Formats: sequence, C-alpha cells, structure tokens
Amino acid sequence: MGKWEKNVRTVVPYVPGEQPKRRDIIKLNTNENPYPPSPKVTEALAQMNIDGLRKYPDPAAERLVSAIASLHGLPNEQVFVGVGSDDVLAMAFLTFFNGDKPILFPDITYSFYDVWADVFRIPYECQPLDASFQIVKEDYDKENGGVVFPNPNAPTGALLPLDAVEDIIAHNQDVVVIVDEAYIDFGGITAAGLIDKYENLLVVRTFSKSRSLAGMRIGYALGSRKLIKYLSDVKYSFNSYTMNEAALVLGEAAALDRAYFEETRARIIATRERAKKEFAALGFSFADSQANFLFVTHESRPAAELFAALKEAGIYVRYFKKPRIDNYLRITIGTDEEMEELYRFLREYLLQI
Amino acid sequence: MGKWEKNVRTVVPYVPGEQPKRRDIIKLNTNENPYPPSPKVTEALAQMNIDGLRKYPDPAAERLVSAIASLHGLPNEQVFVGVGSDDVLAMAFLTFFNGDKPILFPDITYSFYDVWADVFRIPYECQPLDASFQIVKEDYDKENGGVVFPNPNAPTGALLPLDAVEDIIAHNQDVVVIVDEAYIDFGGITAAGLIDKYENLLVVRTFSKSRSLAGMRIGYALGSRKLIKYLSDVKYSFNSYTMNEAALVLGEAAALDRAYFEETRARIIATRERAKKEFAALGFSFADSQANFLFVTHESRPAAELFAALKEAGIYVRYFKKPRIDNYLRITIGTDEEMEELYRFLREYLLQI
Repeated sequence: MGKWEKNVRTVVPYVPGEQPKRRDIIKLNTNENPYPPSPKVTEALAQMNIDGLRKYPDPAAERLVSAIASLHGLPNEQVFVGVGSDDVLAMAFLTFFNGDKPILFPDITYSFYDVWADVFRIPYECQPLDASFQIVKEDYDKENGGVVFPNPNAPTGALLPLDAVEDIIAHNQDVVVIVDEAYIDFGGITAAGLIDKYENLLVVRTFSKSRSLAGMRIGYALGSRKLIKYLSDVKYSFNSYTMNEAALVLGEAAALDRAYFEETRARIIATRERAKKEFAALGFSFADSQANFLFVTHESRPAAELFAALKEAGIYVRYFKKPRIDNYLRITIGTDEEMEELYRFLREYLLQI
Repeated sequence: MGKWEKNVRTVVPYVPGEQPKRRDIIKLNTNENPYPPSPKVTEALAQMNIDGLRKYPDPAAERLVSAIASLHGLPNEQVFVGVGSDDVLAMAFLTFFNGDKPILFPDITYSFYDVWADVFRIPYECQPLDASFQIVKEDYDKENGGVVFPNPNAPTGALLPLDAVEDIIAHNQDVVVIVDEAYIDFGGITAAGLIDKYENLLVVRTFSKSRSLAGMRIGYALGSRKLIKYLSDVKYSFNSYTMNEAALVLGEAAALDRAYFEETRARIIATRERAKKEFAALGFSFADSQANFLFVTHESRPAAELFAALKEAGIYVRYFKKPRIDNYLRITIGTDEEMEELYRFLREYLLQI
C-alpha cells in the first residue's frame, strides 16, 4: 500500500442491478418502464441543435425546470433538478443531513441511503418495518438529525397513506424530511401538496420509472423556496452544469406529454393488478404493491433457487441477499407479453418436484 | 429561521459565467470551442436508440471509456468518466483529499478548487503565483494533504513545462497529485505519460473545450488502476449512473474522430497566435497562453471599463473581481471572424480618450 493511500476515502461500493448485454432476455430486474419514451421525445431529439452542443448548457436548466414546475403547478423556484433522483438525493443528504444526531430511515428500504450516509459520514439509525413490511410511523417520533423514506417503499412496494406521511412530517419539523417518491405515479397520493405547509419537506421524483427515461438520468425535488435555494447553492458549488443539453431537451418533451404518461402508467397499473392475481394463484405472497414491481416470496420454493432458475430461462429479476428479505424476489412489471412468459415459466417450474 | 435550518450545510455558491439568451452576441466568456462538434456526433445522434432510453445506461460507460482509453493507449481500467471535469474533480477531491493536512493549489487558479475544499471541509493553503503569473514549483515541496493545479493554468493560460510538473509529482509521492489538463490540447505536453511511473498521479481532462461538447458534460481522469478503482468506488456510492445514454453515444463519436479534433484545435491555436500579436499591438500584455483563451491587461484602460464597453457592444468576455487579477480580462479564442470584430471594436474604442 502506497503512503498516499492513507488519505483516501474508502467505501463499500454499491453494486447496481445487472445491465445484461444479451438482447433476448426479459429484463424485470431494475424497475425500468417496459414502454418506450413518449413520441414527443423522439421529435425533440430530431430537432436538437447539435452545433449548440459546443456551448455549456443552461446551468439553471430552465426549460426542464419550467416543464416540471408546470406539471405540479409550482413556481420554478420550488423545483430542483439533478442527474437522476440519486444525484438529487445525494445532494440533499449532503446539504440537509449535516448535524450530529442520527438520521432515520427504514431497515428495509432503498439501498443507497446507508451508502450516502457512510460516504458523507452522516450518523444513522434504521427503524424496522413491521412483520408485514409496513413503516411504523411512531418509530420516527424521536430525536433525530433528519428523516428519509421512499413512498411507496422500495423494494417492498408498500404505500404509506398520505395522513401517515403527514404525521411523520408534523412530528419532525425541526429537521428536513425527505419523501422519496420514485414510484408514486404508480399508486398513492403524493406529498407534494404538503410542501407549502411544511417548509422542511423535500419531495423527490424521477423520470426513470413513470416517464420511461432511465437512460437520460433526470430526477427532481420539490420543496419550499428556502429548501430549494439551499440545495441549489450546494449543487452549484459542486458542479454548475449537471444536466446536459440532451437531458434538458428530452426531459422537457417527456414532461409535457401528459397523455402518453397517463396512458402508459395506466397500462402498467393494470398489468400489476393482474400480476397480483397470478402470483397469488401461484403460491406467492407479497405486500400490496403500489409501485411498478412486486416483492414476492413463495410458500415452498426458496427465492434464491427461483432467482437462479429464472435467470437460466432468460428472465432477470432482482434478489437481495440481505437480512429479512433474502427469501424475496423483486419483480418489475413488464409488458403483458413479458409477464405472460413469466407466468408460463413459473407455472411449469413450480409443478416440478 | 426555522429550527430545521441548523443542520443545513451552507456554502458561498459558485457563480457560473453568463450564458446569455441573446443570439446576436459574440460569446468569448466561457472558453467554449467556436467550432461545432464533429460531424460524427451528428451521425451518432441520428442513430441513437430512442426506445432504449427507457433502460438505465451502462453504469461502466464502457463505449465511452473504451474510446477514451484507445485515444490514450491505455486499458479501460485506467480511465474514469464523469459529468464534465467538474464532476470528476469533485469526486477526486472527495476521494483523495481526505486527510487533516492542507491541500495545496495556486492562489490564482480554477475558481472551483476552494469551493470544493469548502463544501467537503478540506483544509487548503494557496501558493502564490510569481509576478509573471507562473507556478513556483518549489512552493509545493512542503508537507501537505494533496496537490492540485491546472496545466495550462486557468485563468492565466500559462503552461508549466512537463519537467516542472514531474518535479512537483516527484516531491509529493505521499499524497495524490491532480493535474487538471482541461486546456492541454491547445498547447504543452500532457502528464498522462507519467501515470505509469507515479501511482499517485491523476490527470483530468474534458470534452468541453477541445472536443466542442461543453453541452454534453463529459470529463475524464487517467491514472493508475488503483487510483481509478478508488475513484470509481466512491462514484458508484454516490450515483451509479452518472453518464446518460446521449453522453455515452456522442462522447464516443467525438473521441473517435481524431481528424476533426486535430483540424479544429490547429485552427484555434493559429487564431490564438495571431491574437497574441493583435493584443500586443493594441497595448495589452499577457502571459504566453497555451490555452484557448488569453488573459490580458491593458497599459492604460482598466479591465472593468473594457469589460463593460465590450458587453455593451455585444462582446462577452470574463472579468473576475478578485485580488491580483481585477485588472485582467479572460478572452476566449473565437473564430477568426469573431476575433476580427473584437479587434475592430478595441482599435476604435482605445483611440477614444
């Protein structure tokens, strides 16, 4: 080991879900949207000013920010954009979780929260979900340095009703509360309506799921002007130009096509509701997901075995080898055709002894 | 002030150079390339798989990394990519400047270094440039937590010869040394040839200047496998998917078109050399820039006055209201036509009493 290594920040690196290069697989492992982006995105790309790429993009990302602001009926000053919700959340952790007391989040949750806490040296305490994988709101009613949770939760898919979300916020007005709504478009009521009531509430969203743009890396946050200003100041100190021109142009087009958004999310929700019946009939149980995935466990077959068998058959799902959830699979809702193939495989496989 | 604000990280936000929305101006204020991206970039964009944007991009950014690696004759494991060199540098500060001793950089230099040091709570000490704005290499021969400097330096444009760069590295083998080569393609010899000799040397580059892709936000670093692994681990902990699909595709196309790169940088260098003669004739003095800008001061007219007059005339240049350099203007090298208009204006303006 070189002497220079003594000053190096070492971390346990996050391992992203596999992005296999094979094209013939059914990819239900990273909660991507099974439908392509809006046709308006294609049009916007064709019209992009390529000569203009020699210049820096607009650091305020105004085209994109305005489109998002109009979606939510908010002024631009209440919208922050970043390179996927991971960038938005990382900046929010860095900006808002800067105290000495531990921040609180669920024990079973988005796997980046503890990674960011570690990298930024933020103390944290996990609050266990109950036996049916629900967040216990009273667990967040204690001294802390901040609160963050996804709603619907990942990877369980379970939704916390808006009154319970508000209860957590109301009990935590001395810290920043982040509600990570990556999946809210697939069910449930957003907490965005509460940002004018609670100055300390940050609601985080993404274009990666419901807007079919995971490949473009667009996330955003909604909050009070004060909160957004603090976040922007840190972001400008970090990298003034995070959103490239293509993300600005395609993101704007996707945000403005509400009809396509409504149509595709309705299709995914319908497929998910059918999937619940199919999985129940196949002997699986699961929390009542309001997201674009199901988090399932089988009555007799171990998840690790099913994961391997599915992969062998060219169907990729997600398996987390972690306490409490190592007998579960997270299965993204695909197209109806993809799901039919999955059911067909499972029916046949589960009949074998 | 809300009680929740006590945990907020507050910073003095960096103010990026103006990106005016008017189209009729001559924009010489942010060191962009005056020439459009390679025609291969246009072709690559037209062939982009838009349906595929529903999926996450390759977290390893392999297409882009391979293209950059082949440019430098290095294996992929010695290349790290990020959202502009600002992202690469910020990640490098976070990863490598994690000790208690102050890091060292010049007093007149890229204005983000002290901003990152502040946001990450890294102690630092500035080393003054000499009276002719040159880095004094002996100043870096003292105990420190790391070293970073641009070469050519910004905003002076002055180049440190490779033997002096190596001298600084050789005297600092117990810390990480970052050589920020944003402008090296416009003159001077890269330190990239030294990375196999010094395991602790990180060389940072960008597509924003010499590759006409500021709008796409692509930066990269070259270093030993060990250094790149440390950097990647922190990056994956922060945001696994920083490079969107468009950046991967267009960046690859730009990297592979060496002929266009050589042609456009030769034109910029030729224009810069003519500019040196013109500015000298107009009564300006400046360090011998090897970058795509000149950093000039006039024998009789204050920089602030010239800045305002140029802006009034629709010619944007950069003025830093900072100690030692508040009588200087940083002027990006534009096309020959743009530069002619600048000279014409200055000739006329400087004749007025």
